[in-house]
Amino acid sequence: MDTKNLNLDFIYTDWSLIETRFDPEKIHHCETVFTIGNGYLGTRGTFEESYPRATNATILQGVYDDVPIVYTELANCPDWLPLIVIVDGDKFRLDRGEIISYERKLDLRRGVLSRFIRWCSPNGKTVDLQFERFASLADPNVLCLRCQIKPVDFNGLIEVQASINGYPENQGFNHWEVIDQGKYDQNAWLHLRTRGSRINLGMATGLTVIDAEASLQVTNPPGYPTLIAAFQGTSGQAVTVEKMVTIFTSRDVENPIQAAQDKLATLPTYPILLKEQQQAWEEIWDKSDVAVEGDVRAALAIRYNLFQLLISAPANDDKVSIPAKTLSGFGYRGHVFWDTEIFILPFFIYTQPALARNMLTYRYHTLGGARRKAIHYGYKGAMYSWESADTGDEVTPRWLPPNDPYGDDIRIWCRDREIHISADIAYAVWSYWLVTGDDDWMRDCGAEIILDTAVFWGSRVEYNTKYERYEICGVIGADEYHELANNNAFNNRMVQWHLEKAINTQDWLREKYPDKAKELEQKLQLTLSRRLRWQDIIANLWIPYDANTGLIEQSDGFFKLEDINLDDYEPRTKSIQSVLGIEEANKRQVLKQPDVLMLLYLMRESEEFPYSLEVLEKNWDYYAPRTDITYGSSLGPAIHGILASDLGKSEEAYGYFMQAAMVDIEDVRGNAHEGIHGASAGGVWQAVVFGFGGIKLTEDSGPVATPHLPKGWKRLQFKVYWQGDWHEFDLKGESMEAQNTSVTNNPDSSGQTPIKGVIFDLDGVLTDTAEYHYRAWQRLADEEGLVFNREANEELRGVSRRDSLLKIIGTKKYSEEKFQEMMDRKNRYYVESIENISPTDLLPGAMDLLKELRSSGIKVALGSASKNARPVVEKLGIGEYIEVIADGFSVQEPKPAPDLFLFAAQELGLEPGECIVVEDAGAGVEAALAAGMRAVGLGPVERVGEATVVLLSLEGVNWQDLQASLNSLVLHH
Amino acid sequence: MDTKNLNLDFIYTDWSLIETRFDPEKIHHCETVFTIGNGYLGTRGTFEESYPRATNATILQGVYDDVPIVYTELANCPDWLPLIVIVDGDKFRLDRGEIISYERKLDLRRGVLSRFIRWCSPNGKTVDLQFERFASLADPNVLCLRCQIKPVDFNGLIEVQASINGYPENQGFNHWEVIDQGKYDQNAWLHLRTRGSRINLGMATGLTVIDAEASLQVTNPPGYPTLIAAFQGTSGQAVTVEKMVTIFTSRDVENPIQAAQDKLATLPTYPILLKEQQQAWEEIWDKSDVAVEGDVRAALAIRYNLFQLLISAPANDDKVSIPAKTLSGFGYRGHVFWDTEIFILPFFIYTQPALARNMLTYRYHTLGGARRKAIHYGYKGAMYSWESADTGDEVTPRWLPPNDPYGDDIRIWCRDREIHISADIAYAVWSYWLVTGDDDWMRDCGAEIILDTAVFWGSRVEYNTKYERYEICGVIGADEYHELANNNAFNNRMVQWHLEKAINTQDWLREKYPDKAKELEQKLQLTLSRRLRWQDIIANLWIPYDANTGLIEQSDGFFKLEDINLDDYEPRTKSIQSVLGIEEANKRQVLKQPDVLMLLYLMRESEEFPYSLEVLEKNWDYYAPRTDITYGSSLGPAIHGILASDLGKSEEAYGYFMQAAMVDIEDVRGNAHEGIHGASAGGVWQAVVFGFGGIKLTEDSGPVATPHLPKGWKRLQFKVYWQGDWHEFDLKGESMEAQNTSVTNNPDSSGQTPIKGVIFDLDGVLTDTAEYHYRAWQRLADEEGLVFNREANEELRGVSRRDSLLKIIGTKKYSEEKFQEMMDRKNRYYVESIENISPTDLLPGAMDLLKELRSSGIKVALGSASKNARPVVEKLGIGEYIEVIADGFSVQEPKPAPDLFLFAAQELGLEPGECIVVEDAGAGVEAALAAGMRAVGLGPVERVGEATVVLLSLEGVNWQDLQASLNSLVLHH
Repeated sequence: MDTKNLNLDFIYTDWSLIETRFDPEKIHHCETVFTIGNGYLGTRGTFEESYPRATNATILQGVYDDVPIVYTELANCPDWLPLIVIVDGDKFRLDRGEIISYERKLDLRRGVLSRFIRWCSPNGKTVDLQFERFASLADPNVLCLRCQIKPVDFNGLIEVQASINGYPENQGFNHWEVIDQGKYDQNAWLHLRTRGSRINLGMATGLTVIDAEASLQVTNPPGYPTLIAAFQGTSGQAVTVEKMVTIFTSRDVENPIQAAQDKLATLPTYPILLKEQQQAWEEIWDKSDVAVEGDVRAALAIRYNLFQLLISAPANDDKVSIPAKTLSGFGYRGHVFWDTEIFILPFFIYTQPALARNMLTYRYHTLGGARRKAIHYGYKGAMYSWESADTGDEVTPRWLPPNDPYGDDIRIWCRDREIHISADIAYAVWSYWLVTGDDDWMRDCGAEIILDTAVFWGSRVEYNTKYERYEICGVIGADEYHELANNNAFNNRMVQWHLEKAINTQDWLREKYPDKAKELEQKLQLTLSRRLRWQDIIANLWIPYDANTGLIEQSDGFFKLEDINLDDYEPRTKSIQSVLGIEEANKRQVLKQPDVLMLLYLMRESEEFPYSLEVLEKNWDYYAPRTDITYGSSLGPAIHGILASDLGKSEEAYGYFMQAAMVDIEDVRGNAHEGIHGASAGGVWQAVVFGFGGIKLTEDSGPVATPHLPKGWKRLQFKVYWQGDWHEFDLKGESMEAQNTSVTNNPDSSGQTPIKGVIFDLDGVLTDTAEYHYRAWQRLADEEGLVFNREANEELRGVSRRDSLLKIIGTKKYSEEKFQEMMDRKNRYYVESIENISPTDLLPGAMDLLKELRSSGIKVALGSASKNARPVVEKLGIGEYIEVIADGFSVQEPKPAPDLFLFAAQELGLEPGECIVVEDAGAGVEAALAAGMRAVGLGPVERVGEATVVLLSLEGVNWQDLQASLNSLVLHH
Repeated sequence: MDTKNLNLDFIYTDWSLIETRFDPEKIHHCETVFTIGNGYLGTRGTFEESYPRATNATILQGVYDDVPIVYTELANCPDWLPLIVIVDGDKFRLDRGEIISYERKLDLRRGVLSRFIRWCSPNGKTVDLQFERFASLADPNVLCLRCQIKPVDFNGLIEVQASINGYPENQGFNHWEVIDQGKYDQNAWLHLRTRGSRINLGMATGLTVIDAEASLQVTNPPGYPTLIAAFQGTSGQAVTVEKMVTIFTSRDVENPIQAAQDKLATLPTYPILLKEQQQAWEEIWDKSDVAVEGDVRAALAIRYNLFQLLISAPANDDKVSIPAKTLSGFGYRGHVFWDTEIFILPFFIYTQPALARNMLTYRYHTLGGARRKAIHYGYKGAMYSWESADTGDEVTPRWLPPNDPYGDDIRIWCRDREIHISADIAYAVWSYWLVTGDDDWMRDCGAEIILDTAVFWGSRVEYNTKYERYEICGVIGADEYHELANNNAFNNRMVQWHLEKAINTQDWLREKYPDKAKELEQKLQLTLSRRLRWQDIIANLWIPYDANTGLIEQSDGFFKLEDINLDDYEPRTKSIQSVLGIEEANKRQVLKQPDVLMLLYLMRESEEFPYSLEVLEKNWDYYAPRTDITYGSSLGPAIHGILASDLGKSEEAYGYFMQAAMVDIEDVRGNAHEGIHGASAGGVWQAVVFGFGGIKLTEDSGPVATPHLPKGWKRLQFKVYWQGDWHEFDLKGESMEAQNTSVTNNPDSSGQTPIKGVIFDLDGVLTDTAEYHYRAWQRLADEEGLVFNREANEELRGVSRRDSLLKIIGTKKYSEEKFQEMMDRKNRYYVESIENISPTDLLPGAMDLLKELRSSGIKVALGSASKNARPVVEKLGIGEYIEVIADGFSVQEPKPAPDLFLFAAQELGLEPGECIVVEDAGAGVEAALAAGMRAVGLGPVERVGEATVVLLSLEGVNWQDLQASLNSLVLHH
């Protein structure tokens, strides 16, 4: 399919992809492009009313089922989209009647897909339809669909049929058996089960009509529960129909059918669900966004690629990973390749390490399959499968069967020969550990992966007595055009590197976790002789590198193959392998994708052998012109982009980069209909951050940028995580200089101890609960006939409950019992009142500052005398920003004693001098200073004048400025 | 699956298979068993309300669609069965509530499947449900389903949902795209299209509720049109719901969607459709029935097997054939094998030659595929595919893919090596021609098949210079346990035989149709050198037959293979190949199915080389004990049964026979769920007719019986067609003697010329239209004031209309104009009155005699003076029994002139002396005798006393007796 010259009707904005015209020729491509999801499932962008030959798909993580040839595949799940609008007897469909206006928008920031159509029915009735759908990121079992219907020029009957289609298919194959279905109240439910893997799936759906009196009917044809609403439409009056769908499988819960019904019953309204969706995405983007100024096409494309990766990443499941085509299509059947570890994972390791950990843990859980594969091939240890599904057993097809009865089957050799996957996984494990410092996971999961795959290599290498060296023959390297290679440089060096890291891992384990080391040595039979053999292999494994020329021969005899000039084959619209045939491509020096260059790319970060800029240059000049980068593998362009950027070929680099970035949106390779190119999307992030941003890890201070921004890029901003800290980069394009605005942990210019922690008072600082306290005290005082007012209340800031009451009663005497009762009563009033606290009660500027602190890697604690601090923090929705809560239960002595703040610092693991305190009360400021901390006082100087810095409030305060001011002057807002 | 000891809850009657208990364990087996159909489609016996894991299927002839590995398959079509009864809120389903009584009956005589259930719902409501369904044989695009619902102990709401399920699947794969659907009046329609082959399918459905006031609603969820009826049920009152479905494809008509709607609109009522169904089946059974007395289990089983073949045979389509598993299941994907030509076709050739011709014409239409296959393998001519579908291209899978990721693919070699199929097809073509004498078809289709496949053999044989002989190496013979055989005796002799017949065919063509001969010689390049080579091959093709021992070696080296004693492996429940593995079975002298014995069977009919009873005996003793007859191929038992019968091993023969006859009903091999064993069913007919009946063709008088009836069989009746005549056999068991009641063409003992034709008068002989004539004359006479009565009417027997009127008017004079008007008027009265003539107007004994004559090969003509003879014959339903109609238009001179009968004899191609006349009028008897024919007079001696034989009527008259009496005495009944 030649789709290079697609005349796309797309508009790009910073955060939205907008389609302005419906083109039936592009439905399958656009279905992929407008995929939405939430990490639990992905749903292709098919229309609610469907379209002839549409390929609807909702694909759930981990729901694999048996299928011939490829053994297992992700089963397409029941379609939750069907919503048919019948306008005065005419069924709305895009291939009938007239489309007067059309706009479809994917809002990446919120993960919401919407569509507006003004349609004139065959009977001449005009109607405005506004569809909106999202898969809830906040509650992944919830799917929401809304349609607003407005008759433009008629009054008449509107009927809406909302169904679940229980006959989904994977390119014709339906993996499901309908077990049961039913209705309750005005809802319907459906129970299906996969044929082979026996996974149960429950769904429930309900329909709400707003702003019209509608009749509602539930019908239940087998496997096709349908809710039908009918109402009288009136010209100019919009009616909204909301379809809610819940979905569970037996992978999630014991009784998915009940769970779906229960969830549906307790669902909040659509607007609330939408708001939660927005918040959930805000949090994700806070870490993972990459912002570009000056190139809106690139800016959108980058975010688009990241969005597609984020909606495929399992947040709550460590037994699955991201398939090659994500959850967006049927290509590669939902199988997991090296694409994930090498291309996709860096984005997650650096911006969503918890998700990266889930996906690497998937490899830990599939060690069983890798071990079975090793046994099958006669090797030891764990030999990862080239294509992996739920068990980790090899699921790469052996044959590509012909459609023509006399055509030949094509033998696919990847399962047997493309063995570098085991080293690739080890590489990803190592990267994750290096970046996150997650020793626990390395001990529990990572080490076993690295070591047992090393055992495999030990059994896989061959010793060549003639040359007295180890060799690895009969492989496919990264370049898949050469199906039977000996001593592929990429493969051999990755094995060598892997064995080096295996020895490092064993040493580290022995030192840090000797029990675990012993356990694994026993389990994996890591005998001394094995270890010695690893060392021998490291020393003697053949890497075809010529130190004189700096050239690396891709594999034995590669330089003797027939040479090729790719320009001779231009123009073309298919791969060189398709042009020449498999055999002929095999005989030539033509690469499907970077191989030696891929090796150099993987060693670039650590600058290990054989990487050096000179070696890169030499090999680039040799291999780049021989690589079928346009129609070979989609894994190539992003990597070429990074390397070209390193070599100062900025324009070339940008070209490669955009080829990768647009592969799906603009269907650069003509196969986007099969699903998102996940590896390419991951490569796009690497190209931006490692390539243009030039991020490298330094041993001491973590990520450092050496940017080479493409021409026209004014600004590039992103964050990366390193060893517990967030590093925010804000790189300016014009000056071509790194502008890391928040490199932390460096002593600042003033020579002061760097600030590593901030301790916030709660009341009056982060929220206005001071007001709630005042009202509760006032009520108690009134009831008891005590003199109290706002002025008196000012005295209570930062004062404990007991001391506050003592101040209020003044000289009066009460029994301890009565006193206690009054304290309890006031607290009850207060607790009652704070029931309604929500994020909107945060004081202006508080949230921004908290986020900025977190992304700057500054630790945050709460230091509040209140015994209600925890619930208030939760209600304010800031729990995740606060590592330590020191509250009314933490210490005996209240402020102005320093105890509370000292406790907080200790819990944060910081010295008092490394902390600052933000306070609104004199007693608090006093306490901070007493603790040896600098204090930021909020409020009038007469109250907090003692503070190091005095501000009126946190509104508009940013961390950079505050940090600066703490070292110099007092700011007044 | 071990199902040998199924405890079947079946009752067998002569014509019905009755299931008395529902067993969920057997649903898939029983779905196959209760398959119904009409040659256009087959529908498995799934339930209207479905059942978990049911495998619904409606399979249409010729509706193939693409699928991987096996290239194409018959697509399962939308299920027309869904009819859900909701009893006071509870959905009727067999796995809920309580089944109080249950009976399912397949009525083979009418092709109707019915089911009665008394069911108590989970809510305690008891209901009687009586389902009935059939696929109309009279109108193959019509499907009828009826359900009678009777509340037993409650009044309450009954809801019926009748759907078409547009999501059918072939073991999970859905071949269809939903294109459109809609409703009109109270009906719904659906338009689907196959994905690959782009066949359009239209269906329409309507629902009628009888005996209740019901609301009726049409809903249209995508792909699942559903009609919903609701009514108030009353205890003890039955309500009937009738669901009619029409179905067309673009293979039948241009616009199948419109055709389905039109057909539905003009459909008669259910009772009329049922009556037509009954009549259509009566006609079929009249030819094809095989009746056994004394063994009801065998009697039912035989009819059952014939029924399953009949419902798969294409009546109106010569581009399809019967697939190995008929239209009853997914086994072998609807592909056509040698099963059809060698096992199934004899039944059709001998009892439904028109259907046989359709199926052989399928092979003619698929010559293109056979030629492409030959080219692909580097041969010439036409090389038929081992598995064939719509185009005739090879669709045998190359590989059996493993389910286990590490299992090995199994290479299937049949497409490459099982080449005997081309000779098998030639064998069937030759048999068809031999039996039917259908020269036209042989000229137009058969010859090209035989000759172009002969061209293939000419290019396929190899010449062995060492032995100076032709050989055929690298084949699979009939026995598929040996996958690589050289000089398989079955294969080589069939090739030799094939080439012999090719030369005969060419000679015949040259003599009889020289133009066609030339055309084919040019088209197929039948050069002299080719013909000489064929003769050379015939003379020198190696057949491994040892004249000394009489033993035939299955293939080169077979006798040197390791021997086997099959008893050593008993008891077992799977094939020896499964027990030993493919390789080990290959190495042993064990056969999957008869091979040398199959050859002997195929040469048995013509007693050609190497067949002789001695050779059979020798080879039986060698090969039968080495054949895996129980779990090898289902093609074996029937053939073994016939040969055992020939060898006088009657009990053994019966055992084999019943193994074949019960293979599906009692699931003897445990795989009946995949569909009917078509070849076995065909073998059952051959075993009864050729084996037990001992039918052989003689050159002069056609089929002759030499029966060996199994013990207990009292009587065996069947018909066979030969060269235009029907031969009816009625064999008695006790005496073990042939009792062919109607051997014809033999001069009888009296020395009289044998009777070859019977000419019947119509009025008063076959029907009582004499009465209608009388009434018409009487009315005319009354209107004109003429004297006329019954007595006077007696004078008009056998008299023309003009002469009759002359007699009536007597002496009166009328103008010619008036006279003509009176004749016309009388005729109008008569024609009006005969409008209502039906088969019930046949006189007693007439039909029996007509049938007997046909099956005895006696030619039949009508000799009636009436100008209305043709319409009367049609209305009487005897058109097919009468070859020639001599009527009032045929000759000038009326009876008693001999002209009419002489004309009839001439048209029959007989001498007058070879004909007899059956007459009820003196003038007729006179005319017969004047024509030189013997006469049978019906009526009083005073009227027909001149006749050779005088009878009162035809009641109770049989041909044997009549023939005898014509040669001796006058009978009076």
